[in-house]
Amino acid sequence: MTAPVNRQIVLAARPAGMPKATDFRLETTPVAEPGPGQILVRNIWMSVDPYMRGRMNDRKSYAPPFEVGKPLDGRAVGQVLKSNHPKLKEGAVVSNMQGWREYFVSAGEGITPLDASLPLSAYLGVLGVPGFTGWYGLKEIGKPKAGETLVVSGAAGATGSLVVQMGKILGCRVVGTAGTDEKCAYVRRELGADAAINYKTAGDCVDALREACPKGVDIYFENVGGPILDAVLRLLNPQARIPLCGMISQYNLEIPDPGPRYLFSMIANRALMQGFIISDHFDRYGEFVGEVGGWLKQRSIKSEETVVEGIENAPKAFLGLFSGDNLGKMVVRLAPDPPASDRK
Amino acid sequence: MTAPVNRQIVLAARPAGMPKATDFRLETTPVAEPGPGQILVRNIWMSVDPYMRGRMNDRKSYAPPFEVGKPLDGRAVGQVLKSNHPKLKEGAVVSNMQGWREYFVSAGEGITPLDASLPLSAYLGVLGVPGFTGWYGLKEIGKPKAGETLVVSGAAGATGSLVVQMGKILGCRVVGTAGTDEKCAYVRRELGADAAINYKTAGDCVDALREACPKGVDIYFENVGGPILDAVLRLLNPQARIPLCGMISQYNLEIPDPGPRYLFSMIANRALMQGFIISDHFDRYGEFVGEVGGWLKQRSIKSEETVVEGIENAPKAFLGLFSGDNLGKMVVRLAPDPPASDRK
Repeated sequence: MTAPVNRQIVLAARPAGMPKATDFRLETTPVAEPGPGQILVRNIWMSVDPYMRGRMNDRKSYAPPFEVGKPLDGRAVGQVLKSNHPKLKEGAVVSNMQGWREYFVSAGEGITPLDASLPLSAYLGVLGVPGFTGWYGLKEIGKPKAGETLVVSGAAGATGSLVVQMGKILGCRVVGTAGTDEKCAYVRRELGADAAINYKTAGDCVDALREACPKGVDIYFENVGGPILDAVLRLLNPQARIPLCGMISQYNLEIPDPGPRYLFSMIANRALMQGFIISDHFDRYGEFVGEVGGWLKQRSIKSEETVVEGIENAPKAFLGLFSGDNLGKMVVRLAPDPPASDRK
Repeated sequence: MTAPVNRQIVLAARPAGMPKATDFRLETTPVAEPGPGQILVRNIWMSVDPYMRGRMNDRKSYAPPFEVGKPLDGRAVGQVLKSNHPKLKEGAVVSNMQGWREYFVSAGEGITPLDASLPLSAYLGVLGVPGFTGWYGLKEIGKPKAGETLVVSGAAGATGSLVVQMGKILGCRVVGTAGTDEKCAYVRRELGADAAINYKTAGDCVDALREACPKGVDIYFENVGGPILDAVLRLLNPQARIPLCGMISQYNLEIPDPGPRYLFSMIANRALMQGFIISDHFDRYGEFVGEVGGWLKQRSIKSEETVVEGIENAPKAFLGLFSGDNLGKMVVRLAPDPPASDRK
C-alpha cells in the first residue's frame, strides 16, 4: 500500500471582486505521521461558506484573513485514522476547522468528537454553523411570537431553510425570498413557507411582499443584503426586529452598493436591527443541537444539501455560492462516508 | 378693554418636498369664554420640531397627519388666564399640545402644570421632548460607558446638545457633527465636546471622523440621516450601539436618499441599531426631569435657544429647522414671560 497523498486548496491570489478559478490552486503534499499526542485525520466533508469571501481580502475583520500561498481553512468533518492522543480514538468522527484539505495532523485543538449516528454532512449545515446561526439569530434577536409575520431572505440556503422551518414551528406566517422559481417552489412545498418570492423577477419586491405580508412584517431575517431589506423596511410593523446574519450580495463588491432608502421606518416603527456573529455564542451550541437535532430525528424539519464531489472541485463549489447554485447547504465530499460499523 | 383676539397658524396646503411660506396661513379667531370645567390658556412659548414635517404629509405614521385648513398643533407652554377647572388655577403655568395658536380653551386634557421656577422655554427644549428624547435614547439604547467614544450628529441642535453634554458627564470621548464652523465651535467650547466636525466641509466625513475617533466609535446618536451614518459604520467598534432618533436630512424628500453602503459593518461588529419614539416612554419623564433638571440647576449643563418672535413668524421658524438656522432649540415667543410674582 502506497502512503496516502494529501491534496489541498491554496489561495493563489487575493480575488478582486468576484473570485475566479485562478485565485485557487490544488497542491499535493505528503501525509505526515502523527507524533506523540497527535492524531491523523482524513476529512470526509468540507464546508464552503459565504463568510470565507471576506477572509480572502487582506483586511482585518471578525475572522483573520487567509494567507496567499497557504491552504484555506474552514469547517470540515473527518475521521481519526491514527491516534497517539489520549482522548481522540481511531475511528472517531470529528468536527474540525482544517477544511480545504484531505488529510491533516493535529494535536487535537479545535477537534470535537461528533455523535456519529446523525448524517455526518449535517454537521456542516443544519446542525453546524449555518443552522446554529439561523437558530440563534431568529430566537435571540428575531424573538418570534405566534401569529407574527417573518420574512427570510436566502430562504432556500443553508441558514434560511432552517429559519423558515423554525418560523413555522413557532407559529409565524413565513415568507421566503430566493433567486429561482425552483427554489421558491422548494421553500413553499418542502419547507412549508406560506409564500415565496423570486427576487430576480419581482422588481423591487415591494408589491410582492405587500401581497405576501398582508399584516406587515414583524421580523426580517437578513441573509442577502440589497433591495429586499429596503422593501421590507416599507412594510415594517411597530417593534419589528431585523437580525442581520449575512449580506452575500455585497461580498464581491469593492465598494458596497448604496443601502436602504427607508431607514426612517426604523424610527417610525421603533424597530431593532442587530448584527451578530455566531462564534460569540458557542456556549449555546449544546442547546441548539438538542433542539434542532431533536426536530431532525423526529423529521419535523428537512435539510437539503447540494453536494460537489472532490477537493479539486471545492473552489467551484465556493464560487457557486455567489451564483446561487446551491439548494440548502453547499458541501464538498472529500471521501465516502464510513459505514456505521466503522464510526466510533 | 377689547376682547383679545386669537391668532393661529393653519396648514394651507400639504407641502411637496421642502415646505414653503405659502403652505401656512395666519388666521384670526375670537377668543372663546371657558365653559364649566374649562380653562382659557394664553400660550407664551411654542415649539417647532422636525417631526412636524412628517405630520404635514397625508400618511399615517406614528403621529396622526395634520389636516389642511385646520390649525397645526404641537408642544407649547402657556398660562391659565381664566379657570372654571377644579385643579388648574388661574396663573398656573402649563405645558400643553395646543401650539401654533395664541389662546385656547380646554377641559384640561393633556395640560400639565409646570414648576414655574425654571425657565419656561426650557420645557420645550432641554427639559421637554427634545431633551427627554436625547436622554432616553442615549441612556437606554446608547448605554454609554466611561472611556467609550460617542458620535452625535446634529450636535448643536435641541436634542444633540444635551446628548453631547451627557456623554461628557458620563465619561465618554464625544465628537459632534454640525453644519457650520460657528456651531462646531459652540459644540467644542460651550458643550465640551472633544472634537466637532463640519459635515458640510468635511467631504464624506470618514477621514475627519477617523482622526476625531482614534479608538473607533462605540455609540452613534443619529439625528440627521445621510452620509454621516455611513462614515460612522466604517469606524464602528465591536458591540457598537446606534440609537436612531431622527433623520432631518430626509424629511423633505419625496423619495428618501439611498442609505448607507457599509451596513455589513453592523454584522462584522455585532452592532445594534434601534429606532425609538419618545411618546412610548413618558413613564420615564419624571426620572428625566429629576436628573436633567438637577444638572441644569447645578449649571452642569447648558441650554441654548434660538428665539423667533411672534406667531406670525412661526412658519419661518419651522422652515429654519431644515436650513439649520437654529443653535440649540428653536422656539417661538408668543407672549412675554410672566414675572415670577404672577406665576402659580
